[in-house]
Amino acid sequence: MILSALLTSVGINLGLCVLLFALYSVLRKQPSNIEVYAPRLVAEGKVQRRRDFNLDSLLPTPGWVRNAWQPSEDELLASCGLDAVVFMRIFVFSLRVFSVAGFMGIFILLPINYFGDQISEVDFYDLPNKSLSSFTISNVKDGSSRLWAHFSSAYIITGVVCYLLYYECNHITFKRLELFNASRPQPQDFTVLVRGIPSHSGSSLDDTVHSFFMEYHPSTYLSHVVVHRKNKLRGVMKYAENIYRRFTLLFSRRSSRPDFRDYNKREDVDGRLQQFGLSTQKEVSAAFISFKSLYGASNVLHTQQSVNPIEWVTEQAPEPDDVYWPLFSSSYIGKWISKLLVIVASILLTVLYLLPVAFVQGLTNLYQLKTLLPFLKNVLEISVVSQVITGYLPSLILQLFLSIVPPIMKIFSTIQGYISHSGIEKSACSKMLWFLIWNAFFANVLTGSVTSQLQVFLELKDIPTRLAVAVPAQASFYIAYVVTSWTSLSSELTRVLALLGDWICGCSGCSDEMHVPSISYHSEIPRLLLVALLGLTYFLLAPLILPFILIFFCIGYIIYRNQLLNVYLPKYESRGQFWPIVHNSTIFSLILMQAIAFGIFGLKKLPLASSLLIPLPVFTLLFHDYCRKRFMPIFQTYSAETLIKKDRMDQNDSGMNEFFHKLKSAYNDPSLIPRQHTYDPDDRSAPLLSSLDT
Amino acid sequence: MILSALLTSVGINLGLCVLLFALYSVLRKQPSNIEVYAPRLVAEGKVQRRRDFNLDSLLPTPGWVRNAWQPSEDELLASCGLDAVVFMRIFVFSLRVFSVAGFMGIFILLPINYFGDQISEVDFYDLPNKSLSSFTISNVKDGSSRLWAHFSSAYIITGVVCYLLYYECNHITFKRLELFNASRPQPQDFTVLVRGIPSHSGSSLDDTVHSFFMEYHPSTYLSHVVVHRKNKLRGVMKYAENIYRRFTLLFSRRSSRPDFRDYNKREDVDGRLQQFGLSTQKEVSAAFISFKSLYGASNVLHTQQSVNPIEWVTEQAPEPDDVYWPLFSSSYIGKWISKLLVIVASILLTVLYLLPVAFVQGLTNLYQLKTLLPFLKNVLEISVVSQVITGYLPSLILQLFLSIVPPIMKIFSTIQGYISHSGIEKSACSKMLWFLIWNAFFANVLTGSVTSQLQVFLELKDIPTRLAVAVPAQASFYIAYVVTSWTSLSSELTRVLALLGDWICGCSGCSDEMHVPSISYHSEIPRLLLVALLGLTYFLLAPLILPFILIFFCIGYIIYRNQLLNVYLPKYESRGQFWPIVHNSTIFSLILMQAIAFGIFGLKKLPLASSLLIPLPVFTLLFHDYCRKRFMPIFQTYSAETLIKKDRMDQNDSGMNEFFHKLKSAYNDPSLIPRQHTYDPDDRSAPLLSSLDT
Repeated sequence: MILSALLTSVGINLGLCVLLFALYSVLRKQPSNIEVYAPRLVAEGKVQRRRDFNLDSLLPTPGWVRNAWQPSEDELLASCGLDAVVFMRIFVFSLRVFSVAGFMGIFILLPINYFGDQISEVDFYDLPNKSLSSFTISNVKDGSSRLWAHFSSAYIITGVVCYLLYYECNHITFKRLELFNASRPQPQDFTVLVRGIPSHSGSSLDDTVHSFFMEYHPSTYLSHVVVHRKNKLRGVMKYAENIYRRFTLLFSRRSSRPDFRDYNKREDVDGRLQQFGLSTQKEVSAAFISFKSLYGASNVLHTQQSVNPIEWVTEQAPEPDDVYWPLFSSSYIGKWISKLLVIVASILLTVLYLLPVAFVQGLTNLYQLKTLLPFLKNVLEISVVSQVITGYLPSLILQLFLSIVPPIMKIFSTIQGYISHSGIEKSACSKMLWFLIWNAFFANVLTGSVTSQLQVFLELKDIPTRLAVAVPAQASFYIAYVVTSWTSLSSELTRVLALLGDWICGCSGCSDEMHVPSISYHSEIPRLLLVALLGLTYFLLAPLILPFILIFFCIGYIIYRNQLLNVYLPKYESRGQFWPIVHNSTIFSLILMQAIAFGIFGLKKLPLASSLLIPLPVFTLLFHDYCRKRFMPIFQTYSAETLIKKDRMDQNDSGMNEFFHKLKSAYNDPSLIPRQHTYDPDDRSAPLLSSLDT
Repeated sequence: MILSALLTSVGINLGLCVLLFALYSVLRKQPSNIEVYAPRLVAEGKVQRRRDFNLDSLLPTPGWVRNAWQPSEDELLASCGLDAVVFMRIFVFSLRVFSVAGFMGIFILLPINYFGDQISEVDFYDLPNKSLSSFTISNVKDGSSRLWAHFSSAYIITGVVCYLLYYECNHITFKRLELFNASRPQPQDFTVLVRGIPSHSGSSLDDTVHSFFMEYHPSTYLSHVVVHRKNKLRGVMKYAENIYRRFTLLFSRRSSRPDFRDYNKREDVDGRLQQFGLSTQKEVSAAFISFKSLYGASNVLHTQQSVNPIEWVTEQAPEPDDVYWPLFSSSYIGKWISKLLVIVASILLTVLYLLPVAFVQGLTNLYQLKTLLPFLKNVLEISVVSQVITGYLPSLILQLFLSIVPPIMKIFSTIQGYISHSGIEKSACSKMLWFLIWNAFFANVLTGSVTSQLQVFLELKDIPTRLAVAVPAQASFYIAYVVTSWTSLSSELTRVLALLGDWICGCSGCSDEMHVPSISYHSEIPRLLLVALLGLTYFLLAPLILPFILIFFCIGYIIYRNQLLNVYLPKYESRGQFWPIVHNSTIFSLILMQAIAFGIFGLKKLPLASSLLIPLPVFTLLFHDYCRKRFMPIFQTYSAETLIKKDRMDQNDSGMNEFFHKLKSAYNDPSLIPRQHTYDPDDRSAPLLSSLDT
């Protein structure tokens, strides 16, 4: 790729971004679109559904940028929760890292590369036709002493990233503790999930649980709820729900809303189904155990309960709303087996993913299409059509295939037997991250068949050299990738699919029930981390990528702040448990950057620099180990000090009796509770500060 | 090596063993040797020091074998502790494994190998001159279908080993829990060691600890002892001790034992030194915290105490007698750094160990010796002398170097900052095991320079093939090794060094104080595990090794039972914590055996068998993971169920008040307590059943 081609691409994408921004600023002002662009505010009752029209609203204005920019982090925390704050910290952290990296890259490394003379001579008149490779490290002469600038940069950027990582860890763990201390009592903190309850013949699971905890924890044990497996029941309930929806639709065409008789009928159906359900449901050897104090629950959580370590296995309970029942595996061994199977399946999907993609892409070449679909022959011979098909179809297919991976990974995590949405998404997030790193980086960089890719990892010592050869060659591809991802980021803003859905729904007159989406961290976080990985690995090799990455994170910062505040309603609050994934991914990026630098200095005939680089990964891993000890436990659990202090505060709280009363039924399966079919806007409006007794 | 040479070696070693056995049975009956051969019984007062002579005692008798054989496992447990039982279970387990393996090896694999015709033809008349390699798998024809017998054997032996491992895990964990339930209250179970106590200016460490635990654990906290660093003080104490010893010696030459005036003088010195010591000692940010209940201590042990995870870090306290103070590192970070340094040092020692050995061995060739020591030239030219030097000196040097490794590994583990002898020895045991496996197996098998050895591990896929080539070639060396280790095992019985020391001491009239040794598990266990590793890896390749290994474990079983009952006094009771090392080593041996088999079948042109072997390591690792979940937690900790039950039993015990009273001072530094210089035989006689309040 030459410089002018890159600039064209930048121009096109910048234009598209501006266009999308302008489009959004107009569309969001249309009263009919308010449920698409501010569903959250509507649900929270902060914005009324107006139907009046205004000419002003047809002009694009940048007011939304100010609105998104303004709220402080604490305001974001109060309205969107700590998970959203952690998500935004990824942008802040990346912006800081790539500001420093960008400065060093553009003002130090890029000139050195450009005046390197290895590939092409300096010629300012011919600048637009220069290949991008003359801006990469490949252009520096072999053995040149200028390479020591790259060497020092590797040390400096590692130091900067580690310092910033430390700062972020400190900041986020502080926020997490502060949030916990300030929050009202939450059911999940008083509750422990127990798996692998041994079955005794002659006594029900209910009695076993009750007698075990009355025997060993009489002073702190409050109540328990046995988990029920009711796939069949759930099916029946779903069926009834569908029937009800159709009824509603029928009625809503007659009157504007379902009348009371109908609602009574629905409750009647519900009641009968419950009776039916209670007879078909099956108890599962797992239960939620609630305790009278935080410290009491924590003790049960951290101590092995039974003589047999795979019975009465405890884990932290999720929020009641966060519980995901259907595929929960109750026995410890069951969970273990499904975990192993899912690991194998994820690895297979990750490694073999490119095979079907390549196969389908192969089908789209013109000759194949003509053979497969002979009736299209005439159409395909039109030059514009053939260009579009050969040019865009393969990448469209790649995008389509790529977009179905996050749901698949989520299904895998579900099968793994997590009890909560947050657990499933956290696990899917890790899987997706490794999938992306493998397929976007290793599989692209280390081209060849799957087995030859895997063989690379059997020849460990060759990895740096192979990376050093392959990675710089892909530089222009990834610069283009980052530039085009500006547009895909901006299209998040316009929510085209949701808009279309709303219009179609509005025209066909389907149900009035509004759907408030929640952000899928498991697909968004890995995307950001991949860009950060590209930035760090190409920092030394092709510093030209850095300004584009800076722009990417700037656009993303504004867009996601806007979306979090207006569109997405948090589904759960894991109190920042996504941060360790970000931390680990950053450390991995650093190590990868260092490995590639090691290989590059070898190739560039500066073996001394290679040798002097060896302390760097050692230092990075030591830093990682320190953080793992210093910060990561805070994401797992709360300390005795924190819990006991909070227990004492709670003791003086007059509302605790009511809280404990509600806690007893907090973990009942929602599918067995008659649900209200009117939308309750206050339901999850302030998820952090809400509590059962407010 | 040919068969007759092997048989000669077997004959010589068997003869030596019988000789040593006979010698032992005579020597042990000499009244003057009773302190060498039954120091434990003397110390426990079970045998009187007689001085009468008997002619019968000059005849070798096998009575000691019956005495060693007779006690049941429960009797062994009662007198030697669970660690000794676990040590003997290694023999029982190995005997069972190698009985099955030996049967299969001798009656199925050996005939198949011998009639294989690849290397040499079957010729019964020439049997004594047959090379040992005609009994190995190398003699089976390439691609022969007889190799499926080896293939099935790999599956069968893996199944047998896993079954027996499961049985042993079950048995030992049961014993461990039974022992805990039956034992009287022990100080270590009520106590937790805390490292990384934050220092507050203005308040002493003592106050900080007291106020922290009074604040957060008021209902269970009993008392604490702050650890003091007193290297200087310790030096002064040692000096005083030496002076005292010399005095005693001087007096004992005049009278038979030191008189009272001397003892008073000693106490006087002690008192002054204590005053001096208290002024020079320095508090260290670590403390032993005792609690009023087992469950209370367990809760503190398992819950993160402070908001900062590297402050107030808790770990299980060792027995009071087991505490090792001098090199204890109090801060969490200090421990972390010393651990990293020790890991590096251990790896260097392990990998580079053969270099100095080879260098010194190189010095011993005749030419070098003549150059270095020209005055010996005439002596060295005598044929017998030169044969002895060239034949035995190198292996003697190897043995000498090898015997200093366990102490070095123990020093490394000491530097690592463990608080207890048991922790140090457990860690040294693992280090020693990896050292032996590397140096005796990999370094010998994968010959070449250190870097080329390490490079093998960078080319992972080549490992099975390289092992498959190198391992069978070393078969005769290891058969000889196992046979000669019979003798070294038997020399344990005669305790030559201790006997010599006793004689010299007796002649020169040195002090009467008797030293009762304790068994060094960190040098004995790895030796046994190495033989088991050899047995499992050579099971398929050279089944001829198996009967010799069976004999090795038979001899060892009797000898060590005898020594444990008569000679060694346990220094500590870790309640079987050495078993996980045995378990992991066995799993490693199985995986190694399977990797070699994988390579062998590839070399023998039976790729189908190689492919069909792949499920085997997967199954083995799954089994290992299951055991890790099912049994290993039991070695780490006790369950809430166990602890609470025992707490309730203790509540009804009238002696608990006295126990708690003594518990408060149990962890005071022994170097600050005036010690009694008369030997107290009941001190550790029944370490398991003894308690502070008996």
